[in-house]
This record gives sequence, structure tokens and C-alpha cells, in this order.
Amino acid sequence: MTVDGKRGRRRRPRESGARQPIREVDYHNLRNPFVPTPVFSEDRVESIHDTALRVLEELGMKVLLPAAREHYRRGGALVEDDTAMVRIGRDLVESALASAPRSIALRAGARERDLTLELGALVIQSGAGAPHVTDLRRGRRPASLADYEELTRLTQRFDVLQMLNPLVEPQDIAPPFRHYAVTRAQLTLSDKFPFLFARGTPQVHDGFEMIRAFRGLSEEDFVGAPHCYTIVNTNSPRQLDVPMARGLIDFARAGQLSIVTPFCLMGAMAPVTVAGALTLSHAEALAAITLTQLVNPGAPVCYGAFSSNVDMRSGAPAFGTPEQVKANLGAGQLARKLGLPWRCAAGCAANVNDAQAANETQMSAWGAVLAGATVLIHGAGWIEGGLTVSYEKLITDLEVMQCFAELCAETPAADADIAFEALAEVPPGGHFFAAAHTMERYRSAFYEPLVADWSNFGTWTERGARDANVRASALCEDLLADAEAPAFDEERAAALDAFVARRTAEGGAPPES
Amino acid sequence: MTVDGKRGRRRRPRESGARQPIREVDYHNLRNPFVPTPVFSEDRVESIHDTALRVLEELGMKVLLPAAREHYRRGGALVEDDTAMVRIGRDLVESALASAPRSIALRAGARERDLTLELGALVIQSGAGAPHVTDLRRGRRPASLADYEELTRLTQRFDVLQMLNPLVEPQDIAPPFRHYAVTRAQLTLSDKFPFLFARGTPQVHDGFEMIRAFRGLSEEDFVGAPHCYTIVNTNSPRQLDVPMARGLIDFARAGQLSIVTPFCLMGAMAPVTVAGALTLSHAEALAAITLTQLVNPGAPVCYGAFSSNVDMRSGAPAFGTPEQVKANLGAGQLARKLGLPWRCAAGCAANVNDAQAANETQMSAWGAVLAGATVLIHGAGWIEGGLTVSYEKLITDLEVMQCFAELCAETPAADADIAFEALAEVPPGGHFFAAAHTMERYRSAFYEPLVADWSNFGTWTERGARDANVRASALCEDLLADAEAPAFDEERAAALDAFVARRTAEGGAPPES
Repeated sequence: MTVDGKRGRRRRPRESGARQPIREVDYHNLRNPFVPTPVFSEDRVESIHDTALRVLEELGMKVLLPAAREHYRRGGALVEDDTAMVRIGRDLVESALASAPRSIALRAGARERDLTLELGALVIQSGAGAPHVTDLRRGRRPASLADYEELTRLTQRFDVLQMLNPLVEPQDIAPPFRHYAVTRAQLTLSDKFPFLFARGTPQVHDGFEMIRAFRGLSEEDFVGAPHCYTIVNTNSPRQLDVPMARGLIDFARAGQLSIVTPFCLMGAMAPVTVAGALTLSHAEALAAITLTQLVNPGAPVCYGAFSSNVDMRSGAPAFGTPEQVKANLGAGQLARKLGLPWRCAAGCAANVNDAQAANETQMSAWGAVLAGATVLIHGAGWIEGGLTVSYEKLITDLEVMQCFAELCAETPAADADIAFEALAEVPPGGHFFAAAHTMERYRSAFYEPLVADWSNFGTWTERGARDANVRASALCEDLLADAEAPAFDEERAAALDAFVARRTAEGGAPPES
Repeated sequence: MTVDGKRGRRRRPRESGARQPIREVDYHNLRNPFVPTPVFSEDRVESIHDTALRVLEELGMKVLLPAAREHYRRGGALVEDDTAMVRIGRDLVESALASAPRSIALRAGARERDLTLELGALVIQSGAGAPHVTDLRRGRRPASLADYEELTRLTQRFDVLQMLNPLVEPQDIAPPFRHYAVTRAQLTLSDKFPFLFARGTPQVHDGFEMIRAFRGLSEEDFVGAPHCYTIVNTNSPRQLDVPMARGLIDFARAGQLSIVTPFCLMGAMAPVTVAGALTLSHAEALAAITLTQLVNPGAPVCYGAFSSNVDMRSGAPAFGTPEQVKANLGAGQLARKLGLPWRCAAGCAANVNDAQAANETQMSAWGAVLAGATVLIHGAGWIEGGLTVSYEKLITDLEVMQCFAELCAETPAADADIAFEALAEVPPGGHFFAAAHTMERYRSAFYEPLVADWSNFGTWTERGARDANVRASALCEDLLADAEAPAFDEERAAALDAFVARRTAEGGAPPES
């Protein structure tokens, strides 16, 4: 857990001459090129929104944290402390939606990593929150800090993953100390925008303090812009538990970003219909967004939705289904109605990185992209409905995410690209390999695959008939052998370590529930 | 090769009670629900179209068949017989585009299998044209008639595959007789719209005669509507060979459908840019469409495009790339400019049905769907860039195609679907499994997966840890054990067999080249 001085001194290296990529790409500031696809008529979107407001007004949310109920009460909601029910009038919700920012500038560890969340932007994240991890070499196992660190280094390595996230839960670190380890790993292994779990005020404040220490920020600097984020899941249906409500308050008060994501599985904790599940999800998201704005009007907050269906025979969650795609598209309509940046998700229920796994993640990711999601979560590596992150799937999914990023780029169609001269140069039945037009462009014309192997069957067989998983496994090992952390200031790293050492000696901060 | 009388007598069975699906689906008349996505501005689409016309006028096409050159000449094109070059004025192309039908009603073996090809429709086909076949049990091998028959029976089984196609090339049947075997298999194993290869007039006329005999059609009935189709590939760049030109003429004259598909690999037989490859592809398609309309104004013809890129290091074709998606989207813009129904393709260069294979086919299929393709070819089963059809990939890709079909259906959002009452019924933190709203709908609410396994890791492991390929292989065997052919008239089948026996005795019809 001590900072490696040598690593601190080195700059983030450029790739060496031999490995110089011939094609430069920038997957950082992506704008979604697709026309958002609706699944509901405009009047039905109005009906869903209106019904969600009616749910909050007439049925209410159960809010387990007394301090959160007090915020709602002071804002004008009807609160019953004995049942913990909070009925929120539409005026409160509308005033919260008026103060929630439409565009949120995120401050990462380096300016070229900063992001702006707003409708039209496309930010991609890997899979998150898994207790287990798997790879071909080491098998499926409870995730450890070493796994978390490796996956964070891989995240740093891929421009298309623009934010950090809690890929796996390091189960070898006791809960009161785990947040020190994961926050430290994010700060020292990456300069991307970091994530903190909302597991009670002591842990959250520890995280804020670590970021301030490591980034060299005054209290004022820190609250002036979002330097980290958390994800708030409601306990669907219609319940907001203690740590989640606490997180909304703590992050809003400190000007840090909450991404509100009800997880509404159709037929389980939500109605069996896409429209019904989205009505519930929308109501819960509005309730949580309202709390952030009651605490601190203008506090950065993202709308979010994560709805898929269950297998009605077993109750098992399913992902990558047509129903998830439709829910994503419908959630996009609701987000556009609000005008807020929003988070949507891919997903995969397969138990291994096979064709099912690939198809489910890509299908649901298309749903998110066509829905106009600002942040696409679980885009790479997520299997077993989020119980496991697979190293190999991280890589094979990243190929898909990089394809999305490529699709965000303009397709050149100047006269020179339309290429009448080249067409005149090559005779009927000839080929363009040696045409001047080709020679000028071939080095950078095409996306270069990460893990796809386009060799023919004979060559592929001679080379060992390695499938995508075998190749992805080897690529992970190469990347991990190679990857270096960004440079950082040793004094700040020392301050970080001193803070962690002191807090560890004090017994850490047990998570709240 | 004789008709099984028993099979002829049986009706196509409904599934037995025990296997009764609880959810009825109809994937037959699909309308594409997605807003077509452009990659070029309107003025660039005009420029590509205009440059394609200039290519035909100034550079011309090499047309190897003298009879085809004669049609062009009589239409007013400038023809040089010594070089076989044909320069086609834009007036000829424009007049062909004016007579080509915007909507084409296809006549299958049963009315419920008929199709209409027009912009807005979505018709899906499996992979086609592979010399090899592979499955887990029998391995990779040259395709045989038995494989072709099995794959045709599988095609019949899935509503989402709405047309027949030449999945694999039965290499155990000599070329002069192969068309008898494949046409007979299509007619007797399926009632879907059949395909004939354009390999010279004798084979084409044999095919027409077999369809007339088996369907009980007069010559007049037959020419009155398309009862079969062929696919015409140009020899890019700018060349139309003898059998392809002959096919265009023979099919147009008989009122049968040609789908024109230049195969323009960027950087190989086409310019390295998406815009340049599409310009060439568009020019070649216009030349072929023009020939059909010169032969028979109003003859059914589809526009088509199939452009992807090569790996510039090895020259190997790549599929499922961002460039293929962009080419698909651009081709859609050109097709909409013409107003014609059109064919687009998915693709996959992987050598085995792994995550790469799944990702490539799905990525390119989304390109075709978002491009507004009328016919999506190679949607299921295609690997190795079309050199092999995989039984297992046929199944895993069909899951994706069925998801597309599900996305074509409306998403219910009546007040009852928005479900305020259900939301009121279930308390905070409760669940909807037993809600009245759920009970009324759960049997039919969700897509039922074909091959996806949503069980958790423990259950999946206990059941043998079968990946998608193992499950797909077992499903193929079950379906083939189970599948029965549609009913047909024994007299017509006898007439078909008599025709084939006579033609076989006469030596068949060698393909022309």
C-alpha cells in the first residue's frame, strides 16, 4: 500500500517505435451519431411521466433515512415518520427538475480526461459491481484487490472507457478499509474520473478527503466542480434505503455527482410491462433527483434507468433481451423529456464469454446507444447478470465499444473520397491495392481490431486455432505487463498514504446500512 | 431423390400439447421500426450518385456477354465490341429507374409465406453461398446435399428467415445436376420463396420449369409474378461477366426477381474509402438494374450493396467492422434516393462461433437494420467471410434476428400497461411476481429465448456448464429430428421427379462461365 516512488517519477510513456500505432484515434469526446429511436408515442411518454408524478403524489416513496425525510418535509412533501412514507407533490419535482443542471463538467485527474455529461454526449463504462472475477488462466473466484487493480489498469489503458468504476468488489479487504484501497487504486493507477461507493457518510467523507489530498484541492476547489461520482440505486419498488439516501445528501452537499439508477426488473420488483416498469423507475429517479436539489439546488445529478425482464419460469434476471432494448429506448424518451444527462446500461446473463454473452451485451448496448444514453454502463466485461467480471469479455466487448466510438466519427465524403480519379485509374476487373488513392490512405483508413482475427481458416489453424477468449486472455496479460500508471506528485501521494494510515489506525469506517 | 409419399400426405403439424408455446409470435411481415441513420449529408449523397452516373457515362462497364451489350446498344448506350466496354448515359439509367418497381410482391409456396419487398419492409435471410459447413459433432467439411437439405429444413422451421437461399454448395453433386438437387430440396422441404443460381440459361430454365411443375403454374401464371429469385454479383470493379449478365436477362424476361449486389471490398476491388467504394458499387448496381429494365421494363429487381473493408496488412476481407456499418448506412441513403427495395448484408470473418463471430455478425446486422435494408442477407450462420456455414452459429445468430423481429413489434403503453393500479397494489420493497397485473400477462410478456441460458452459475454448472455452441448443437439435432416438411401434392412432386429424371438422363445442364 505504499506509493512506488519510481512509478511516481515516470511519465506516462508513449508506445515505443516498434509498436507505434499507424492510426491515431481519439475516443474521448464522443458525440452520439444516431437518431434517438422512440418506442412510445409522445402522448404515451406524457402519460408515463404524469403517472410517475401521480405515484409520488398519491402512493409515495418509503424513505428510511430520517434526515432525508426532513429534507423532503422542509421542501413541502407530506411525510409520515411512523411509516417512513413520503408523498412528493409535482411542484417539488418540477422545481427540482428546473434546478438540476443540463450539462455537467466533470473534473478528472488530468484535463484531457475531463468529461462533459449532457444529452448528445456518449460516455462508456465497463461492467461494474461484481463480487466475482474470472479469467481463463486463473478461473472464477471471489474478486481481490489485485483483481481490482488490474482491471483499473486495463480501464486506464482504453480511451473508450472514459470513467472509472467499481468493476469488482475486493473481498480480501475488510469492509471498513476497502474504500481506502479502491480509492487509492483509482487515484494512483489512473487519471480518469473516479467513483466512490455511497456506504455511509464516514466512508464518503474519507473518499472526498483522499481525492482532495491526492489532487491537491482546497475544500473550495473540491466543491466547485464534481471530482468524483457515486451511483444510487433505489430499492425498487418505491423505497430509498439509508446509505443511498445518505449518499444523495452527502454528494449533493459537496457538489459531487450522483447517478440515480433504479434497477427495475420487469415482473420482479417492477410491473411486467415495459411501460409499467419505466413508470416506476421514472418515479423513483424523480424522487431521488428531487432530494439532491432540495439539499443543494443545482447539485450535479444524472437521471438513470436500468430495466430488463426476468425469466418468468425461474425468476432469473435476463439481459440483452428485446424488452431491455425497448426499456432503454423508452427511458431515453423520458430523459429527453427532462432534458437531463442520463445513464443507461447494457447487460448479459450468460455464465461464460460465449456467443450468448457477446450477443446480449451488444444487443443491449445498441439499445442504450439508440436511446441516446449519456453514460453507457456495463458495456464491457459483465457476465452472470453482474455477478462476475470476465477479463476476456472485457476485451471482446471493448472491440464493440471501440466500434461504437468509430461510428461517432464522420465518414469522409469529399470529392477526393468519392474518388472518381481512382475509379478511372483501375481497369475493369482490376484491383485498388496499388492505386495512388489507396496508397495515400491505407495506413489510417480502417479501424484496427483489438482482438478480432481476420486470418483465413488455414492460417488461423496453423497459428493454433485460438478463439477470441484465448486471444483476449493473451492480450490482457500483454497489456498488464506493459501498462504503466500516469505520473503523479510524490508529496501528494505521501499525503494520501498518511491519511489512509491514520484512518486505518483509527479503525477505518464500517459501511452503514 | 424420390418423394416420400408419407411425408407428402401429412399436414405441417402444429406443435404437440406438451411443447405448446405459451407465446404466439409472427415474424413474417416485419416493418423496420428504426429511423434510418445517415452517414453522409444530402449533398454528398447527390455527389456519390452523380459520380456513379459519370462513371457509367465516361468510364463505362465491361460487359462480357454480347447479347447483353446488344441490349445496352439498342437502349442507346455506346458499345465497343472489341473491348466489351459499354458506356451508359444517365438518360438510360434514369429511364430504368423510372420503370423499376417500388414494391415487389413475391409468390411463395403458400400464401402465408408470400412477401412484399419495398422500402420499410424487413426480410431476413441466413448466410449463403458457403462451400464448407461445420458443426460441433461432425466438424468442418465440404458441404454436401445432406447438409443443404438439413439447413433448408432449419430455415423452414424459423419464421424469422423469410426467404430460402443457397446456404451451402453441395459439392457431392456434380455441377450439371446440382441445380436439380437444390431446387428440389427447396420445393419439397419448404414452402418459402426459393432461390436459383444464375449459372447459364439451361440451368435457369430448368429451375423455372421445376417451379412451374411443382407449383402447378402455367407459363402465364409464372411470368405474372416473381416465384423465385437470383442474386447477381458484378465482378468489381466495373465488370459484368457472362453468367451474371445472362441471369439478369433470363430473370427479367421471365418476370422473376434479380437482386443486384456488387461486392465492393474497400481497398481491394473498390476504393479504400467508404464513399469511393459506394460510388463504384452504386454505378455497378445501376448498370445491372438498367439491363433488366432494357430487357423488360417493370421487371422486378432489387438494388443491393455489400461493402466491407480488407485488412490492409494481409488483404484478408473483414466483416462486422465500423467501415461495413458505415457502408451499409450510406448504401441505405442511396437506396432511398432511388426509392427501390434493396438488399444489404451482415458478415463475419471469424473462424469459429466465438465472441468475435457473434459480435461481427450483430454489429453489421445493426448496420443493415439502421440502414433500412429491405433484405438482410447473411444474418445467421455465416463464418470465415462466407466460406463456411456453422450450424451452431445459425442458431445463436437466429436469437439476434428474433430479437430484431421482436423490436419490430409495438411496445404496449395503454393506461393498463402503465399500470398505476399494480404500482398501488405492491408495497414499497415488495415484488410484482404475484400481482394481478403480472399474472394476467406473464405468459406472453417476454420474448422466449431460443438458445440463451439465463440460469445462474451454480445451476448452469450443475447442468453441465454447456456454452452457447453446445446448446445450439443439441437444439439443431432436436429440430432436425422433429422438423417436417410442408404438405405437397404428390402428382406435382411426381411431375417434378419425372422432369429431373429426364433432364438427368439427357446429361443435365453444365454451368456456363
